[in-house]
Amino acid sequence: MITRLSQLFLRTLREDPADAEVTSHKLLVRAGYVRRAAPGVYTWLPLGLRTLRKIEDVVREEMNAIGGQEMLFPALLPREPYEQTQRWTEYGDNLFRLQDRKGADMLLGPTHEEMFTGAVKDLYSSYKDFPVTLYQIQTKYRDEERPRAGILRGREFVMKDSYSFDMTDAGLDESYAKHRRAYQNIFDRLKIDYAICKATSGAMGGSASEEFLAVSPAGEDTFVRATEGEYAANVEAVVTPVPPEVPLEGQPALQEYTTPNAETIDTLVEWARAEGLRVDGREVTGADTLKCMMVKTAAPVGPGEAKEWELAGVLIPGDRALDEKRLEASLEPLEFELASEADFAQNTFLVKGYVGPRALNAHGVKVYADPRVVKGSAWITGGDAANVHIAQCVAGRDFEVDEFIEAAEIKEGDPAPEGQGTLTLERGIELGHIFQLGRKYTEAFDVQILDENGKRAVPTMGSYGIGISRMMAVLAEQRADDKGLNWPVEVAPYQVHVAVANKDAAALEAGDKLVADLDAAGIEVLFDDRPKVSPGVKFKDAELLGMPFIAVLGRSFADGIIELRIRGGETLEVPAAEIVDKLVELVRG
Amino acid sequence: MITRLSQLFLRTLREDPADAEVTSHKLLVRAGYVRRAAPGVYTWLPLGLRTLRKIEDVVREEMNAIGGQEMLFPALLPREPYEQTQRWTEYGDNLFRLQDRKGADMLLGPTHEEMFTGAVKDLYSSYKDFPVTLYQIQTKYRDEERPRAGILRGREFVMKDSYSFDMTDAGLDESYAKHRRAYQNIFDRLKIDYAICKATSGAMGGSASEEFLAVSPAGEDTFVRATEGEYAANVEAVVTPVPPEVPLEGQPALQEYTTPNAETIDTLVEWARAEGLRVDGREVTGADTLKCMMVKTAAPVGPGEAKEWELAGVLIPGDRALDEKRLEASLEPLEFELASEADFAQNTFLVKGYVGPRALNAHGVKVYADPRVVKGSAWITGGDAANVHIAQCVAGRDFEVDEFIEAAEIKEGDPAPEGQGTLTLERGIELGHIFQLGRKYTEAFDVQILDENGKRAVPTMGSYGIGISRMMAVLAEQRADDKGLNWPVEVAPYQVHVAVANKDAAALEAGDKLVADLDAAGIEVLFDDRPKVSPGVKFKDAELLGMPFIAVLGRSFADGIIELRIRGGETLEVPAAEIVDKLVELVRG
Repeated sequence: MITRLSQLFLRTLREDPADAEVTSHKLLVRAGYVRRAAPGVYTWLPLGLRTLRKIEDVVREEMNAIGGQEMLFPALLPREPYEQTQRWTEYGDNLFRLQDRKGADMLLGPTHEEMFTGAVKDLYSSYKDFPVTLYQIQTKYRDEERPRAGILRGREFVMKDSYSFDMTDAGLDESYAKHRRAYQNIFDRLKIDYAICKATSGAMGGSASEEFLAVSPAGEDTFVRATEGEYAANVEAVVTPVPPEVPLEGQPALQEYTTPNAETIDTLVEWARAEGLRVDGREVTGADTLKCMMVKTAAPVGPGEAKEWELAGVLIPGDRALDEKRLEASLEPLEFELASEADFAQNTFLVKGYVGPRALNAHGVKVYADPRVVKGSAWITGGDAANVHIAQCVAGRDFEVDEFIEAAEIKEGDPAPEGQGTLTLERGIELGHIFQLGRKYTEAFDVQILDENGKRAVPTMGSYGIGISRMMAVLAEQRADDKGLNWPVEVAPYQVHVAVANKDAAALEAGDKLVADLDAAGIEVLFDDRPKVSPGVKFKDAELLGMPFIAVLGRSFADGIIELRIRGGETLEVPAAEIVDKLVELVRG
Repeated sequence: MITRLSQLFLRTLREDPADAEVTSHKLLVRAGYVRRAAPGVYTWLPLGLRTLRKIEDVVREEMNAIGGQEMLFPALLPREPYEQTQRWTEYGDNLFRLQDRKGADMLLGPTHEEMFTGAVKDLYSSYKDFPVTLYQIQTKYRDEERPRAGILRGREFVMKDSYSFDMTDAGLDESYAKHRRAYQNIFDRLKIDYAICKATSGAMGGSASEEFLAVSPAGEDTFVRATEGEYAANVEAVVTPVPPEVPLEGQPALQEYTTPNAETIDTLVEWARAEGLRVDGREVTGADTLKCMMVKTAAPVGPGEAKEWELAGVLIPGDRALDEKRLEASLEPLEFELASEADFAQNTFLVKGYVGPRALNAHGVKVYADPRVVKGSAWITGGDAANVHIAQCVAGRDFEVDEFIEAAEIKEGDPAPEGQGTLTLERGIELGHIFQLGRKYTEAFDVQILDENGKRAVPTMGSYGIGISRMMAVLAEQRADDKGLNWPVEVAPYQVHVAVANKDAAALEAGDKLVADLDAAGIEVLFDDRPKVSPGVKFKDAELLGMPFIAVLGRSFADGIIELRIRGGETLEVPAAEIVDKLVELVRG
């Protein structure tokens, strides 16, 4: 297949679009892959559509390989099934809602659990029909509050969503494992740098859940990776290693100190060092102090009901900030707020800046604590009076913890689990999410299947998504350089870019022959045959457009040499007679 | 590729769905190709999606062959461009409108002239970039008042729409001709029985327009075809052959008759025969009488303005009804209504049932007439008084025609143009429409292109659509029999259906080997391997699902014979050793 640049519907831009902040957005617009139609809504120009379709094909192949069956639901959906699962309202402003000419409520599908579950309920009735995995590659709609970064987070976007239905939990584990492997294959084939992150299961209530995050500074999510090993996790899902307990016997008694000018952890550490306090024979650090953050928590209530707030303290080593996202994930389904001035005023035993765990114990306030606060651990903490701190405050002796909780920030260098070195903090773009949903939807739709014993059983479900259009943005983010895009061979719009950068008629003729020969060899070629464009502009465009191999018929063509530029790599000088074989070899990899 | 029926997400139904009226709707639901999600909104099940995609591929190949470049616009569109062409309001209730979370008006795209024109304006500036043909294969939305017949007329449907941009009218002619040829190729490849109908250009104001109609009793459109020749046309576009004028000299004078009980054309003809009147020496027929239908017409006005209605008469041979659709198309842009009782009451010279052309001439009322009312033609018509008719009322002598118009119904047997025999009336389903739009949209968006002389010029545009999902319904309509579907090889979900209808383990084993061999030969196979399903049910399902070739390992398998049923055709007995070659031969055609 040959496409001539002189005819391609394309105009490359030298300037970044005004609204673009990240690399992929800038380059995909400048290189004429996509074009904005409305905020968060993009048009796929010919080059962009070719890459999008190729990514879809990779995903399709891997989904078919695990027995997935492709189908296609409408994007325009009736309200009823989404009403049945409360998502019609739960989605809030993220859902595009509309009414048809008869006033019926409809929506543009953001995800299709309801529809797939309904289809399985209608078509299947016996355990013999299971397991089944269904998927679609479809245009989806979410009315994002802040659509950003071009196709990285659009309001209309292409997604692969699949759903597994199994009769047993072991079956769900197997379907989940197959999807996990398929996703790895997809991202490996596309040469994406990604991490599989343990995710918190969140409000969905399922048992297992992992996110596939592309490593990228343009990402909105922070995650951790082990320096030595495979471990990676969402920050919310990181589990703090628990240190061994310390015997209570023989520990020095709690001691109270007057500590003027020690209102921050830094000044407290300074004071402790000046005071000559030591821990295990070494100098005191922030990690030896214990902060007591006051919050209040409440269980969720129905509309119109008032929440019953309950005061609680959260104990965290002084060298770490409270990570509200981690706290939120840990407390779920409870909600929380930081305690207000009013809360302090109402509870006079709380001395702001000097709250310690003993007052909380004494007044029956629930004490949450970081897992490091093991029995026998000794801390410098607030003394429940102004300008008072206490040292040698030992957990399990001087105060009690009601519940351990993940609420402290994760820091670069924290230990990774199972001896995998330490943790690094990275930014990531969510590419995919696999999820053991369980029976939430099959129960909501009362899916009853006859099992082997002729009894009714409810199948269990997995839900698995990959952002197809987002994957294209990720490829641009991870692989571009300052000159332009750089596609992996498998999803490049064309495998080879041929540029005639020589005004001799012979060069153009040789170019014509070269592209014909490449086409005959089954290579997809983009041919820059534009007669009046300078070599410099042709080179710039070739680098911007990002085909993996660029063959230039330039100055050295007179000597029978074709310049072969490997995008983002070396430049070879290849005799004209060998160029087709060389390119075929490179393309076939 | 092999798909096992034991695993396919499918349930065939023996009963027609309650809401289905036409064959394609009944069969596509019963055979598990599509499933209703909402009124006029359908889900594509695995079999249906395979055929849909194959139809798309045929269309894509033919569009690429004429140099079309594929791209993809969003379905969710901003209001502004559609406001600019007034279509935001003109579409009325047919447009799905919605607001995003910020209150911005958006729509679901029914067709994309505005978007393509805008893209060309942004990307192109020189005549050297032209001509260009762009297309997309996309999900489109129209909120039909009466969605009907399953995917035949849905509210969410798949369409190929393309747009040509040329600098000259001759260029547009060429782009149009290319599309016409591509559409013929598409419908020929899919073995669709279709007619290319001249269409009226209508409100779009373009110069040439043709519709591709699939011949089908389920169609909503009526069209005519010549018995001997290629001619076909929308009923609105049929041009009445004009008979030669007749010399006025020597014609008998007009004669007035009292005609009690001759209020209908039938009773008038009866009276004329009883009276002994003759025309050219033969008995009078209804075609010798002239009806005068009273209407009123008005030019369109802006919102809030009152229409100025003007009385007019329409003369039509008495043996034909007034075809209001033809009259509407002829009068456009004027609108019309039939005259009301009040109109008759206001104009006392109109004697209901006896209106003749002379009174209209006398009172300055505009006279439209069927083209058969040539100068010198003599008619029996109303005498402008109760119970009075006149005979030998000669056009151009006794009355004048102001304007000839196509308003009479077309009848089976009417002469076809250019000696192509006579016309037959047929029902058709609109499959495609090709249209010379001209500069309506390029002017609306002020597309200015520098021509060869460096002057600004506005390109001219063609618009071309094909209903992809509708084409699937048409294939079902035209090719199904009472047993089920029957797909052409090129778009069948699978090319061969293999059914094991024999309980011997040897037969199932042979079936496994056969499908593996077919797969190795590049054939797509649907394999009915269901162990506990009776041969009768397997045959019924095979016929319902409609693969073109069905290989049965049944009773005669013990004798080494495989039954090869050609769907809708003969059944062959093929030795097992020859079956793969035979099927490959049939599939390759």
